[in-house]
Amino acid sequence: MSLIPVKTILASETTGHSITVKGWVRTKRESKNAIFIAINDGSTIHNLQAVAEPGQFSEETLRLVTTGACVAISGTLVESQGSGQKVEVKATDIHVYGPADPDQYPLQPKKHSMEFLREIAHLRPRTNTFSAVLRIRHALAFAVHKYFNDNGFFYLHTPIITASDAEGAGEMFRVTTLDLDKPPRTEEGTIDYKQDFFGRETNLTVSGQLEGELGALALSKIYTFGPTFRAENSNTTRHLAEFWMIEPEMAFYELEDNMNLAEDFVKSVIGYALEHCADDLKFLENRLIDEEKNKPQAERSPMPLLEKLGFVVNNDFERITYTQAIDILLQSKPHKEKKFQYPVGWGIDLQSEHERFLVEKHFKKPVILTNYPREIKSFYMKQDDPSDAAPGPTVRAMDVLFPGIGEIIGGSQREENYEKLLARVQEVGIDPANIWWFLETRQFGSAPHSGFGLGFERLVLFVTGMGNIRDVIPFPRTPKSAEF
Amino acid sequence: MSLIPVKTILASETTGHSITVKGWVRTKRESKNAIFIAINDGSTIHNLQAVAEPGQFSEETLRLVTTGACVAISGTLVESQGSGQKVEVKATDIHVYGPADPDQYPLQPKKHSMEFLREIAHLRPRTNTFSAVLRIRHALAFAVHKYFNDNGFFYLHTPIITASDAEGAGEMFRVTTLDLDKPPRTEEGTIDYKQDFFGRETNLTVSGQLEGELGALALSKIYTFGPTFRAENSNTTRHLAEFWMIEPEMAFYELEDNMNLAEDFVKSVIGYALEHCADDLKFLENRLIDEEKNKPQAERSPMPLLEKLGFVVNNDFERITYTQAIDILLQSKPHKEKKFQYPVGWGIDLQSEHERFLVEKHFKKPVILTNYPREIKSFYMKQDDPSDAAPGPTVRAMDVLFPGIGEIIGGSQREENYEKLLARVQEVGIDPANIWWFLETRQFGSAPHSGFGLGFERLVLFVTGMGNIRDVIPFPRTPKSAEF
Repeated sequence: MSLIPVKTILASETTGHSITVKGWVRTKRESKNAIFIAINDGSTIHNLQAVAEPGQFSEETLRLVTTGACVAISGTLVESQGSGQKVEVKATDIHVYGPADPDQYPLQPKKHSMEFLREIAHLRPRTNTFSAVLRIRHALAFAVHKYFNDNGFFYLHTPIITASDAEGAGEMFRVTTLDLDKPPRTEEGTIDYKQDFFGRETNLTVSGQLEGELGALALSKIYTFGPTFRAENSNTTRHLAEFWMIEPEMAFYELEDNMNLAEDFVKSVIGYALEHCADDLKFLENRLIDEEKNKPQAERSPMPLLEKLGFVVNNDFERITYTQAIDILLQSKPHKEKKFQYPVGWGIDLQSEHERFLVEKHFKKPVILTNYPREIKSFYMKQDDPSDAAPGPTVRAMDVLFPGIGEIIGGSQREENYEKLLARVQEVGIDPANIWWFLETRQFGSAPHSGFGLGFERLVLFVTGMGNIRDVIPFPRTPKSAEF
Repeated sequence: MSLIPVKTILASETTGHSITVKGWVRTKRESKNAIFIAINDGSTIHNLQAVAEPGQFSEETLRLVTTGACVAISGTLVESQGSGQKVEVKATDIHVYGPADPDQYPLQPKKHSMEFLREIAHLRPRTNTFSAVLRIRHALAFAVHKYFNDNGFFYLHTPIITASDAEGAGEMFRVTTLDLDKPPRTEEGTIDYKQDFFGRETNLTVSGQLEGELGALALSKIYTFGPTFRAENSNTTRHLAEFWMIEPEMAFYELEDNMNLAEDFVKSVIGYALEHCADDLKFLENRLIDEEKNKPQAERSPMPLLEKLGFVVNNDFERITYTQAIDILLQSKPHKEKKFQYPVGWGIDLQSEHERFLVEKHFKKPVILTNYPREIKSFYMKQDDPSDAAPGPTVRAMDVLFPGIGEIIGGSQREENYEKLLARVQEVGIDPANIWWFLETRQFGSAPHSGFGLGFERLVLFVTGMGNIRDVIPFPRTPKSAEF
């Protein structure tokens, strides 16, 4: 078969030969002497223009060549007469695979709202914006695998269905084969989960980290890249019930190694997108400028898309402790002028406005904050030795902060000491019996180790400049919405 | 940080310099003048040997250096005196990160049963067999992404939680946030799924194909690689409740293009493993020979592991129709001598014994069967024009058959004609309203297209020569088992 992508045809160095292009009609434009048909096959943001002489084709055929129709057009590749493209096809044959009735096809060449496009998520990959987002999403996913493979990490598939709720990261989805109408019950009248598929209560995972640590304590360097779930009833532009997470976990890495890896990793994958998706990024940059031109300055992006990506790739990330960050915020103008919405003080969970101030105003570069208060971080993080530097106990956590978005990566060195970990598990109210296997890794050949997590959709959101996380995943899952 | 993997150290071209190796003790062997410590860090099947002079280290330290302990050993890299390795470390410093009490640590250097190792799946990646399997699993996963990326496919994340049961592929897991003890009910007394998280009944996906087709009909070539689920109560060596599937889907591909792709793809990823995992494959080949030496000939693998992989990579796959295959089987010796367990006749679902006969005995190469009876295949497969060649209606399905395992890939050209597809949907009893979005793609810009599915664990099983699918995924999910 000779299926040549539009992207390849547009990059042709020679002309004069016969080709066939297959794709979907984006627009048809008629002048007196010619019909111009713009064809896109999803391989690139650019269309290939086919030029047809009106008399050469039947009315019947031309009538079916409308926006959305799927066609194969054969002809000669020639240098384009118009501007905007190097080559075009002088059509000699037009075959319509599948028409798209203009009265019915919802994707006509005009501006559609993002809300409307979400309702036709089965068709929206045929738009410029969504095809660009999906190509970038692909490139970022590939860059993730390539980075870890090149650096000696092993991809570990951690389980999706899990019986442990050890992360305590939020509400979980139950997974069951029990009959909801008449579930089996024990003699005491409670639901008899022994009769459920797995013989116990099971949920969808909220994180692969705990299992990831098991892998790292055998293979040294692993990463996960899989779906995770939160059953939170959050209808925001930043939350999905189903999203993909990347979680590397490394034996023998301490906090500083972890920071070095996170910085190098995120620069590498964004750099990959800059190198491989230049046209799509340029398109999305212009789209964003267009979207924001009617917004007040304060609500606009802090910088144009490509500049923002360069800001990450070309700067050394600033590294300071949480305690130092709080001092900076307390001395900042927005704090003194009461411009922050949320109060600042040691022990608070930093808000996006605080994180963005540090990145965009104070340091003017990405920032890594470390050594957070123990009470606002997870039980598995390594406890710092007591010191005078911080007013309370801290852990070896690290958050990477980006412009426009705040926290994009969260990680830590892990507690490798069995007694300290067990004490913390009990303090936060987890039943040690639920994670006996996690605790055992600290009893048998324990090692210093570290890791971090990156929500893949938040990365795609950052790189594409899209405004709503529902628009960077093909089929979003949100409260009351599981269509397609 | 200077964390040098064992794999890199073992490949050193020079000696005489100082190094530090970090990893887990596999064995400790003492002679009169030296202590030999074999260290593995999961980067390779091979251990690095450290040699320590007994008097140079404290009894206290050496006592903790036991199988399973995690250590950092510094010293000079020297040419090895013994056989089996090129270099070894002359130890000057031994640090024990985490001991592993020999009375408690379950992974002592002796043979453990696969069943026992499944019970300690948190530790089994520290064994030679499982670390080899996990490294090969990683290499295969990376090869999949690399192949598709290199060939212009886009990775599409299809949804895990889904409201459609269109595939009818088997029992599904329900996903819910309703209180099982007291679920909300409608006035009629039925469960009120409107109050469930997604406002409707939802399940875990059994396949990303239908959504994959939506992607292909916009981006031309996509693939999925994600978890899929079957709630079948099957306790076999071939079934998992949670497994990973690879599903490419291509616009403008007809059945022959689909076959070409499947053959090229599977040869490419297995070729990648042969190139990048030679040591692990050699180890697993020997393991398999050892495992099978006490089995009767009939139960042994048809050929040694590497020969089997070469059989796939180096042969042109034989391509015949299902109808031709039935003729061959009807004329075969095992059929005439009633050696097949299952009867042969046009219309049957081929059993593994039939598939393996075609591959291993008749053609002596991998086989692709096409044009299966319509009644035993899925509703979305393209219907063949009636012909005299087959005794009943057929569809443009294709199954790729491998030695030892039978079917490894199943695919088809898809029905792109709206009326034919709708008729088939109704015939098999699917409510068209449930998949309106799937049907609409045949109304708007429909295109000929094809795709196939490959169960990733079946591929890993084939490539590693392992006997049970529970042993090629880190944390298997099976009936009554969701530990870790």
